[in-house]
Amino acid sequence: MSTYHRTAAIVSQGDEIVLGQTLDTNSRWLSGRLMDAGVLPVEHVSLPDDRGAIAATLTRLSERVNLIICSGGLGPTADDLTRFALLDVLGGEMVEDEASLAAIRAYFESRGRVMGELNRVQAQRPRAAEMIANPHGTAPGLFARLPSGCEVFCLPGPPREMMPMFESHVRPRLRLEPGRTVVTRSLHTIGLGESEIAARLTRAGDMMARTRNPSIGTTASQSIVSVRMRYEGASAGAAAALDADERAVRDLLGSAVFADGDQTLAAACLARLRERKQTLSVAESCTGGLLGSLITDVAGSSDVFVGGWLTYSNEAKRRDLGVPAALFSESGAAAAPGAVSAEVAAAMAEGARRVSGSSFALSITGIAGPGGAVPGKPVGTVFIGLAGDGFATKIRRFAMSSDRSAVRDWAARAALAMLWFHVVDDTTTRLLREVRLDGSA
Amino acid sequence: MSTYHRTAAIVSQGDEIVLGQTLDTNSRWLSGRLMDAGVLPVEHVSLPDDRGAIAATLTRLSERVNLIICSGGLGPTADDLTRFALLDVLGGEMVEDEASLAAIRAYFESRGRVMGELNRVQAQRPRAAEMIANPHGTAPGLFARLPSGCEVFCLPGPPREMMPMFESHVRPRLRLEPGRTVVTRSLHTIGLGESEIAARLTRAGDMMARTRNPSIGTTASQSIVSVRMRYEGASAGAAAALDADERAVRDLLGSAVFADGDQTLAAACLARLRERKQTLSVAESCTGGLLGSLITDVAGSSDVFVGGWLTYSNEAKRRDLGVPAALFSESGAAAAPGAVSAEVAAAMAEGARRVSGSSFALSITGIAGPGGAVPGKPVGTVFIGLAGDGFATKIRRFAMSSDRSAVRDWAARAALAMLWFHVVDDTTTRLLREVRLDGSA
Repeated sequence: MSTYHRTAAIVSQGDEIVLGQTLDTNSRWLSGRLMDAGVLPVEHVSLPDDRGAIAATLTRLSERVNLIICSGGLGPTADDLTRFALLDVLGGEMVEDEASLAAIRAYFESRGRVMGELNRVQAQRPRAAEMIANPHGTAPGLFARLPSGCEVFCLPGPPREMMPMFESHVRPRLRLEPGRTVVTRSLHTIGLGESEIAARLTRAGDMMARTRNPSIGTTASQSIVSVRMRYEGASAGAAAALDADERAVRDLLGSAVFADGDQTLAAACLARLRERKQTLSVAESCTGGLLGSLITDVAGSSDVFVGGWLTYSNEAKRRDLGVPAALFSESGAAAAPGAVSAEVAAAMAEGARRVSGSSFALSITGIAGPGGAVPGKPVGTVFIGLAGDGFATKIRRFAMSSDRSAVRDWAARAALAMLWFHVVDDTTTRLLREVRLDGSA
Repeated sequence: MSTYHRTAAIVSQGDEIVLGQTLDTNSRWLSGRLMDAGVLPVEHVSLPDDRGAIAATLTRLSERVNLIICSGGLGPTADDLTRFALLDVLGGEMVEDEASLAAIRAYFESRGRVMGELNRVQAQRPRAAEMIANPHGTAPGLFARLPSGCEVFCLPGPPREMMPMFESHVRPRLRLEPGRTVVTRSLHTIGLGESEIAARLTRAGDMMARTRNPSIGTTASQSIVSVRMRYEGASAGAAAALDADERAVRDLLGSAVFADGDQTLAAACLARLRERKQTLSVAESCTGGLLGSLITDVAGSSDVFVGGWLTYSNEAKRRDLGVPAALFSESGAAAAPGAVSAEVAAAMAEGARRVSGSSFALSITGIAGPGGAVPGKPVGTVFIGLAGDGFATKIRRFAMSSDRSAVRDWAARAALAMLWFHVVDDTTTRLLREVRLDGSA
């Protein structure tokens, strides 16, 4: 086999995955990281907790690729069989790894607990294998070279343990051909549909042609469309080729591009506000904290985000944000617009800004479903408000998909998109799923 | 091979899946539907758009199982190769299916469009295969019996086309052994570690033995551990066997069991409060809306959840919830406990309950990181408060893992766990990662 890692297979283990109880997200993540590193994944396999099946799969794949990354099956219980399957393939005997045993004991002790006897198995490895330290859990990983020369990394299943172990122990041990590289770059956009982006890139010199290098593709996740560029070839040409493409894509997509790399939309908004020394507050109804959660997921958000209100009830909207009681249907006023309305969204945003003293305030009120629809306002109707200094409060209305979780996700991101387009002075882009304030398309 | 379908393999196709750009959700869904029907999935495979790899995989799997369900690779473009791979395995020639061609033309015409020449390939099938009608798209499916006797159903990739085709064409053709069934059941727990649960089940008659029926396994996802039971055998015995095991597991794990099936911890808490006609509010600092988001993700939460405060700044804690200014370090008071303290957590919960009038209020204040650590309070230090009528405000302190996102997730779930154990009158269970209020283990 090649001494370089060109292709790889990814194996995920666990009855819960193969029986359909848990969605495997590790394989996708590992594929993305391998691609970023210049290694091409050629197969994903998910297996049940079956020692024979795991061993047979490792043997089969080791004849095809020289790199296998496994996740799962390293826990302390009888259904965690990866180490035993690896032993079957490697031969030899199982040994107890002193350093790992000490690390597992220390992990428990640091949490005020005593290691159970059951966890002792997690310090075992086939004699021919190495342990991989796991700073975030009790399951160390395993590394071994199989008889074919194929290298196998076995990582624990929980993503929070698996991901840092990949970064610190697997990524540095990938062997890439000198002078050859695979480099990926992504730009993230909001406000444009995937087909509109594809049309613009295709008109500009067929930038999405399959045979092009760098190759360019798009992926949509909820309302965010990412443009992914991938260069494969001589190392020397990578930066110039990607720089040229990145400039071209940015020119074609304009202010819709909010970030590159791993930056989220919330992080991009916070960075702009931080530059301008401005602050933000939120008032959420149907999203119930999701917008605040996206914002505060960004490290260092506290110098921009001053706080918010989860005004789930009309009473809370009135009491905490001063939304006039007459706006609610329960007020009995014949023309009351109701809790899900442009008027209430505006009063929520203005109230949040007034009470908190923030530069900007975002508000969301809507019908996430499955109940709550009223005539003229089906499930998925959401009003979003943006209040700030020196402009009339902006209100947009959306008609979103009918699934509760999707409505909430889309609404929180649409609120951030409104803030984004405001701070980049784009007053013309209409957001996806936006409708007129009277509900017409 | 058996004339009955006992086990199955699931194959998903597409570069976008194997390269990590798209998450494969079809395989999980198909596994769940097969399990519901009494067929045990034994392997998932995802393959790139590679005719040779697809054909080799079909041949390999057909020697192991007598049922394969494929999704993807039936589109009209050059990278859709499933029909050709199937031809390679079946032998013979490709033919154009008249009825399918007419159906594809009609599909376009019904949408006011003309079928492109590219789509004509979608009416092709190996002579030995049958077409499966697709009422929701242009890609008919394919059915064939391979030389080994294994039956293969090829369905298109888009879930909204694939799912109805499974229900109408695959499900009715599954051949189940009369009187035999596979049934799964899961119980979800909080507050106990996976190894503690395994130890209890193992001491009770080796309930996790691999050869047992029902078989019992555990999976951990963040702080929640699920116990999964699977019965395989005579239909007549299924309910009694699972009922007996469910009772035994519930007895062994007690109040740690908060739900079965798909119910979340937040939903379980809300259901208990709803029964008792009680309400809930939240005051969040480091989680910034995540707790509220978990609560309001539950449909119908508005009759229990009255709202909350994202008091990210000290000023907001003071202004909105009446937290005494003297508690903050910035007050200059020598003995001020600081914003991340038992005292502030208590004042936040009591303030939220007082202002909102809710039966209970949960508060969270902590250091999510990566910055913000102070002497004696490292990143991951979190205080959680629960205020309510008739008891002194409960405060617990946690030492959580050091990753920002993990600290926040864990903190939000720990808050729900405190509420859960309170409403089920469990005053003894110490939560995972809990430490004493002075920070000692």
